[in-house]
Amino acid sequence: MTSGPGAWITLEGGDGSGKTTQSNLLAGWLTDEGHTVVRTREPGGSEVGQLIRDIVLHHRGDIAPRAEALLYAADRAHHVATVVRPALARGEVVLQDRYLDSSVAYQGAGRVLDATEIRNLSLWAAEGALPDLTVLLDLDPTTARTRLDSADKPFDRLEAEKAEFHGRVRDAYLALADAEPERFLVLDAAASTQEIAALVRARVAALLAPR
Amino acid sequence: MTSGPGAWITLEGGDGSGKTTQSNLLAGWLTDEGHTVVRTREPGGSEVGQLIRDIVLHHRGDIAPRAEALLYAADRAHHVATVVRPALARGEVVLQDRYLDSSVAYQGAGRVLDATEIRNLSLWAAEGALPDLTVLLDLDPTTARTRLDSADKPFDRLEAEKAEFHGRVRDAYLALADAEPERFLVLDAAASTQEIAALVRARVAALLAPR
Repeated sequence: MTSGPGAWITLEGGDGSGKTTQSNLLAGWLTDEGHTVVRTREPGGSEVGQLIRDIVLHHRGDIAPRAEALLYAADRAHHVATVVRPALARGEVVLQDRYLDSSVAYQGAGRVLDATEIRNLSLWAAEGALPDLTVLLDLDPTTARTRLDSADKPFDRLEAEKAEFHGRVRDAYLALADAEPERFLVLDAAASTQEIAALVRARVAALLAPR
Repeated sequence: MTSGPGAWITLEGGDGSGKTTQSNLLAGWLTDEGHTVVRTREPGGSEVGQLIRDIVLHHRGDIAPRAEALLYAADRAHHVATVVRPALARGEVVLQDRYLDSSVAYQGAGRVLDATEIRNLSLWAAEGALPDLTVLLDLDPTTARTRLDSADKPFDRLEAEKAEFHGRVRDAYLALADAEPERFLVLDAAASTQEIAALVRARVAALLAPR
């Protein structure tokens, strides 16, 4: 959706895949290159979004699955309209932790809601806005778990269920990347931090090169 | 959507149309008749809904139109799933102030969003649930304004705009009632309170009669 020299880059991947580290490195490089970088996230990348994020993440008691999906979509609608689009219009680079691919991968993998419906809901919320580039840090769930939890105990049943869920999330992410190869850059999150950063920079440099 | 002896009744109409008065009278009568009545409302008819209502109605600063529509839909999804459906399953009568017709009439009349999209969003949120009866208290906006504000000053421009908006809301309500004559009972809100209450009771009695 870039109209000026700005660009919209989203980072996707499971917890422990290194999104924050790569976002820090990329933001530093972009700033050195002279770009104005807006770092943001979903949910919670706006003031209204913070209120919504509090409900979704901190409410005691269950939230009906469709209500949860609609809250994420509401956060997205406000964030895209009031943060992302204005920054792009100013020619800035928006560097965003999670976007609609997270909704499709996580809510779809939960098996309660249909992934296509979740995607359509997100697209309606954002009036069809899609990033110029989505970096997917792909990591198999077992490695991710080892990174997050160094204890080397065998999985109990809950942990096995969690591992199965994260396996479905990973599969959903990879399917999304397959469907939109132009938008996605899929990187092996098990590679070294500097190796990954170099590949991200190369792709972003191409994206920002004068056209 | 009634499966047992319960019923779901929604009240619609502009502010000042007498919804609360009629709801009080109907609830009293239903209770006297031996029904368990659940009185509720949207937005804000659940704990999560109260949090959402606070954002929609009390947040300082604008909320993007699609975000607002999605927040109302999230409230609806949670309310129908956790309040309305369980009450109907217990055979109770749900008496509800405002439902999806409000969203279509108000958000659609705001002219920013498409009424059909708003309706589809609400129906997705509620998994297609529609009330057994919707009582529309129809009142022309000028009379409504006189009821709410006894000052008899001429309209200024803002007030004229407001009157025009409420005229569009009324037209949208009447169009909805025309499209679903089986579900709607349209009553002239300018009639006497007791006259209206009697017409509502007659229709509700027929609805609750053993089938």
